[in-house]
Amino acid sequence: MPILVVGSVAYDTVETPFGRAERVLGGSASFFSVAASFFVPVNLVGVVGRDFGDKELAALRGRGIDLEGLERMDGQTFHWQGKYSYDLNSRETVCTDLNVFEFFRPKIPERYRRSEYVFLGNIDPVLQREVLDQVDRPRLVACDTMNFWIEGKPEELKKTLARVDVLLINDAEARQLSGEWNIVKAARAIRAMGPRTLIVKKGEHGVLMFTEDGSFAAPAYPLEEVFDPTGAGDTFAGGFVGYLAGAASTGSVDEVVLRRAVIMGSTLASFCVEAFSLDRLIRLTRAEIDDRYRLFKRLTHFESV
Amino acid sequence: MPILVVGSVAYDTVETPFGRAERVLGGSASFFSVAASFFVPVNLVGVVGRDFGDKELAALRGRGIDLEGLERMDGQTFHWQGKYSYDLNSRETVCTDLNVFEFFRPKIPERYRRSEYVFLGNIDPVLQREVLDQVDRPRLVACDTMNFWIEGKPEELKKTLARVDVLLINDAEARQLSGEWNIVKAARAIRAMGPRTLIVKKGEHGVLMFTEDGSFAAPAYPLEEVFDPTGAGDTFAGGFVGYLAGAASTGSVDEVVLRRAVIMGSTLASFCVEAFSLDRLIRLTRAEIDDRYRLFKRLTHFESV
Repeated sequence: MPILVVGSVAYDTVETPFGRAERVLGGSASFFSVAASFFVPVNLVGVVGRDFGDKELAALRGRGIDLEGLERMDGQTFHWQGKYSYDLNSRETVCTDLNVFEFFRPKIPERYRRSEYVFLGNIDPVLQREVLDQVDRPRLVACDTMNFWIEGKPEELKKTLARVDVLLINDAEARQLSGEWNIVKAARAIRAMGPRTLIVKKGEHGVLMFTEDGSFAAPAYPLEEVFDPTGAGDTFAGGFVGYLAGAASTGSVDEVVLRRAVIMGSTLASFCVEAFSLDRLIRLTRAEIDDRYRLFKRLTHFESV
Repeated sequence: MPILVVGSVAYDTVETPFGRAERVLGGSASFFSVAASFFVPVNLVGVVGRDFGDKELAALRGRGIDLEGLERMDGQTFHWQGKYSYDLNSRETVCTDLNVFEFFRPKIPERYRRSEYVFLGNIDPVLQREVLDQVDRPRLVACDTMNFWIEGKPEELKKTLARVDVLLINDAEARQLSGEWNIVKAARAIRAMGPRTLIVKKGEHGVLMFTEDGSFAAPAYPLEEVFDPTGAGDTFAGGFVGYLAGAASTGSVDEVVLRRAVIMGSTLASFCVEAFSLDRLIRLTRAEIDDRYRLFKRLTHFESV
């Protein structure tokens, strides 16, 4: 079943210790869509300016992503510029030019309204609810957010979370949202806000998933060459939700499927960081994905005593 | 087969957000020994002052730890005082009174010299080598160290590492020792210095083990109540080396056994942090250990796609 994703489509300018990429394709919806496209068809809702290029459109279309919902507005495309420290663990935002994204009001095309799987990228929680108001009772709503909304619109965010099944945020955001430092307590508090599944992303330390069945820990794949971490979180989300949607078309989504989805998300994210922008994801094959999934098993499994 | 452990036996004064413990039993050799004692007999070499109490001796003896090598010297026992931040992730050393530990020159009792498993706690690398000079070709030498020796005695440390089989250090120390930020590259550089197995400890983010077979990632157990992290690393080492020594008495130490040992170390460490000092470890049972080991499997395992 197809996924509806709503979020940013952007140009990124990224500087890492290993090089610089100027105005390359980025944005949460772009990374998410390409990752999810390995499992199911993807319907993208976002906005770009007049400057958005044919090359970028072709890259997304080449992955079979439906762009009927990608609005083109007068003005420039959202542009983010960031610089990573030598350790890739912290980054400085050099500038954020929202441009047309400032005026984004998601309009869900008629064809997309029956989407059973929905991913709400990190946008204003009020807009996230406007998206949900335009879709017919989806089976699963996954959602991202950030410190800006946790601080700036906590009540709106809580109204949105009450309608969300899976929340994907990082550890600092989980602590901020819950007011709890301990991550197990934070997870309990957040799950009480609505999401029955919480994914806590910890960058190079992997992810923790909290469900009604307890917790599941997955490491990040230890890569020798991490080139650019931009988009890894959205790519994780795309692999995770994409795998779930694909699995749901042939069976039910239980703990076994959720855990596989976490590993699939981690697998896709591990490829994302190997190159700038979507460069590695675009040329990825399903065989490479399945190979690395198997490596995750080798990385984590051990025998009983 | 018994393990020989050489390291500090100390009094700790610890302040956490949850309380304060005054002059309680601590030190690397204490935590290591108690953890290892669940698997094999332990022979302890260390030094204490005239103030060291019968209660502390009884706690160690109660776990069957051989104290013939625990020297008593005129003066006071090593005393460390530390204070943890609200998040337990950083700590400030309030004071370090080395006392008799400043004059510690490990003397290995005759009975201990045939120890096949040796753990060199975090002491001067010159002293670590003096220990090795006093034992008869051990089957496995495990070793800890810290930034103080990496900076202060790099050449002495390298001479020691050339004689070590397993090095257990934290991620910051691995980066400092290797000069490599990327942890996979750091591991390769360190393994080239001697240790064929490297364990990188990452606190609440678990551990990574690097062997000739590749890498193995284990999370820390997500606890709702972390009371006092002091000694968790030494307790991990005790569970790890203790399990290995126990397994070696009935078979060979291969990758399967090494991985089980990592989980056993993580299991013991997860109990250590539940109370001050060795309080939780002292009253631990083998059944509780095996239960939590099984929970680690539940926490990490997933199925193939």
